[in-house]
Amino acid sequence: MSVYLDTLRGRDGERAPVWFMRQAGRYLPEYRHIRERHSFWEMVRTPELAAEVTLQPVARLGVDAAILFQDIMSPLPSMGVEVEFAPGPVLAEPVRDAAAVARLRVPPAEEVAPFAAAAVRLAAAASPVPVIGFAGAPLTLAAYLVEGKGSKDFATFRAFLRSEPPVAEALLTKLADVAIAYLASQVAAGASAVQLFDSWAGLLDRESYARHGAPHLRRIVAAVRELGVPVTYMAIGAGHLLGEVATLGSDAVSVDWRTPLRQARRLLPGKVLQGNLDPAAMLAPRDVLLAEAGRVLTDGQGGPHVFNLGHGMFPGTDPDGVAAVVDLVKGFARRPVAPAGATA
Amino acid sequence: MSVYLDTLRGRDGERAPVWFMRQAGRYLPEYRHIRERHSFWEMVRTPELAAEVTLQPVARLGVDAAILFQDIMSPLPSMGVEVEFAPGPVLAEPVRDAAAVARLRVPPAEEVAPFAAAAVRLAAAASPVPVIGFAGAPLTLAAYLVEGKGSKDFATFRAFLRSEPPVAEALLTKLADVAIAYLASQVAAGASAVQLFDSWAGLLDRESYARHGAPHLRRIVAAVRELGVPVTYMAIGAGHLLGEVATLGSDAVSVDWRTPLRQARRLLPGKVLQGNLDPAAMLAPRDVLLAEAGRVLTDGQGGPHVFNLGHGMFPGTDPDGVAAVVDLVKGFARRPVAPAGATA
Repeated sequence: MSVYLDTLRGRDGERAPVWFMRQAGRYLPEYRHIRERHSFWEMVRTPELAAEVTLQPVARLGVDAAILFQDIMSPLPSMGVEVEFAPGPVLAEPVRDAAAVARLRVPPAEEVAPFAAAAVRLAAAASPVPVIGFAGAPLTLAAYLVEGKGSKDFATFRAFLRSEPPVAEALLTKLADVAIAYLASQVAAGASAVQLFDSWAGLLDRESYARHGAPHLRRIVAAVRELGVPVTYMAIGAGHLLGEVATLGSDAVSVDWRTPLRQARRLLPGKVLQGNLDPAAMLAPRDVLLAEAGRVLTDGQGGPHVFNLGHGMFPGTDPDGVAAVVDLVKGFARRPVAPAGATA
Repeated sequence: MSVYLDTLRGRDGERAPVWFMRQAGRYLPEYRHIRERHSFWEMVRTPELAAEVTLQPVARLGVDAAILFQDIMSPLPSMGVEVEFAPGPVLAEPVRDAAAVARLRVPPAEEVAPFAAAAVRLAAAASPVPVIGFAGAPLTLAAYLVEGKGSKDFATFRAFLRSEPPVAEALLTKLADVAIAYLASQVAAGASAVQLFDSWAGLLDRESYARHGAPHLRRIVAAVRELGVPVTYMAIGAGHLLGEVATLGSDAVSVDWRTPLRQARRLLPGKVLQGNLDPAAMLAPRDVLLAEAGRVLTDGQGGPHVFNLGHGMFPGTDPDGVAAVVDLVKGFARRPVAPAGATA
C-alpha cells in the first residue's frame, strides 16, 4: 500500500507522505531538456512525453505520488475551445453569452482530452507510486473562458457572474459534466487519486462561491468518490471560503501558505489536510527552507497530513533543496492522534 | 463640517459618506483627455495637472472626498530609485541587499515628492470636500523594490523576507521614515485625512505580516494621528490578517469585497469601516449594480461606515453608473446605533 493513499483514506500515520504541486516542471533540468525540443501543447498532447515528465520528479526526488503532467486547459479543445499558450493561456474567442455556451461540446469520456488518459496509463504502468489525476474546477475554467485569458482580477468574469446568473449556471454545469467525464477517464486509466484545482475561486466572496462554485464541486467530488478514488480540493487565497469548502465532500483539502494548518484543522473537521509550505521558502537558503518545512510538519500534526506546498513550485527552485525537504519529511516522526478510547 | 471627516472621527450618522478608490482615473473621459497629452509621470509630477485630476470626480459625481492623484511609487525617486511605468511600475535596479538599502536616501519632508504636497495645496484650496492624502505601505513598496516590478506572486520578495530579515528590517524602516515625512508634507499642505495602501500585504501569512508589516504601520499611523489627521488602512485579500490589522491604531479600515462588512465589524471592534462594493459590480447592468450597492449599505450599518469599493475602480467602468451609486448612497437612510444609555 501507499503512504499517500493511506493518508488520504484518513490514516494519521507516523510519517507524512510528500509530493509538490508543479513538481513536474520548469525547475527540473530534465524537464527543460524536453521542453527545448517541444512546445508546451506538444508535451501535453503526446502521452509518452507527458508520462515521462510525470515520472521525472519521482525518479529524482523520491516523492510519494506522481501528479499527471497536463494543464487545466487540456480538456477545453475537446469542448470546441481553441487555446494557445503565450505563455499563459489565451483563447481564440471568449465565451460570454448563452449562444457561446450552447455551442460548447460535452463529449463522452473517451473523447475528453484522450491524450491525458493515455499518459496516465503509461505513467501508472511504470510508476512505483500512485498517479494523481486532476482537473480544473468549473469556476476557474469559466474564469478563463469568460475573460479570454489570464488576469490579475478577472473583472469581466466577476461582472459576468453578477450579470448573467443563468448563463453562468449553464456554463458551469457543462464544465462540471466535462470534468466528471475527464476524471473518470483518468481513473479508468489508472489514476488512484484526483485533485481539483480551483486557482481563482479565492477572488470571489463567499456568497458568490456558495452559489456558483460549491454546487458543481459537490457533484464532481461525489462522482469521483463513487469510483472509489479519493479527492483533494485546492483553492488559493481562499481562507475566507473554508467554511464552504468544508461542505464539498472531498477527502482532503489543500491549504495555501496563508492559513496555518492548525487553524485549517479547526475549520475543516474530519478532512485530510494537504500543504502548506510557502513555495517562496524554496527560494531561500537551505537552513531557512528546512526550518520552515519543519514548522509545517509540526503544525500538520493532529490529524492526517499530506506534506506539500501551499501553491505551485516556482520555476527558479533548486531541485537539491526540494530533495532535502523530501528527506526531512521522510525522517520526521509525527505523533499521530491516539485512536478514540486509547490512553496516552 | 464634512460627513466624511465626521464619520472617520467615529460618528455613526444617518448617511454614509461616499468616495471611490481610483475615482480619479482612466474610466473618466476628462481624465483620458489630459492623459492623451501627458505621460503618467508628467501628470503625477505637475501639481496643476494632478490637482485638476484630483478634483474631476468631485465635480462630476459629487463624492464626499477627493483623493489626491498620485502613485504609490511617487516618493521613490526622492529616495534615489528610478521608476518607469510600462504601464506597470518597473525599477531600473531592484533593491535586494544591504548595500542597496544603505544607498537609499531618506530625505527631509520637503524633499519627498514635493509635487505631491503642491498638488494637495492646489486641490485643497479649490475643493468643496476634504482632500485625502496617501502613501504606499512599507511592505507593498518593498515588494516592488525587491521584485523590481509588479508580479502576481512576488516570489523573490517573499523569499527575501524569509532569507534576509535584518536587510528587510532596514529597508522597511527607511520606507516607513519616508512615508511619515511624505504624509506630513501632505497634511501640512492641507490633506485632512490619510489612507495607507497596502496592496500586497495579503500575500503574506499572518506571522510574516506581524513581523514585517505591522510594526512599521503602527509607527506611521501614530505619527500621522499625532498631526490630528485620521488614518484609513487598506489591504487587499487580507481577510486572514484582520486580527493583526485591528491592532494598527488606524481610525478606519478599508475592507475588500470578500469580507462581509458585518463580519469585519466583529473582527475590527471600534473601527470605522470603509468599503466594500466589488468593483466588478460596477461593470454589471444598472439594476444589478444598485442592488449590490444597497446590500453593502445595509451591511455597513451597526457602526460608522464610509461607502467605497472593495478595491480600485476598473478602467471600463461607466461614470453614469458611478453617479447612480453616489445618488443611492446619499439617499439611503441608515439606522445609526443608538448611543449607549439611550432606549430604542
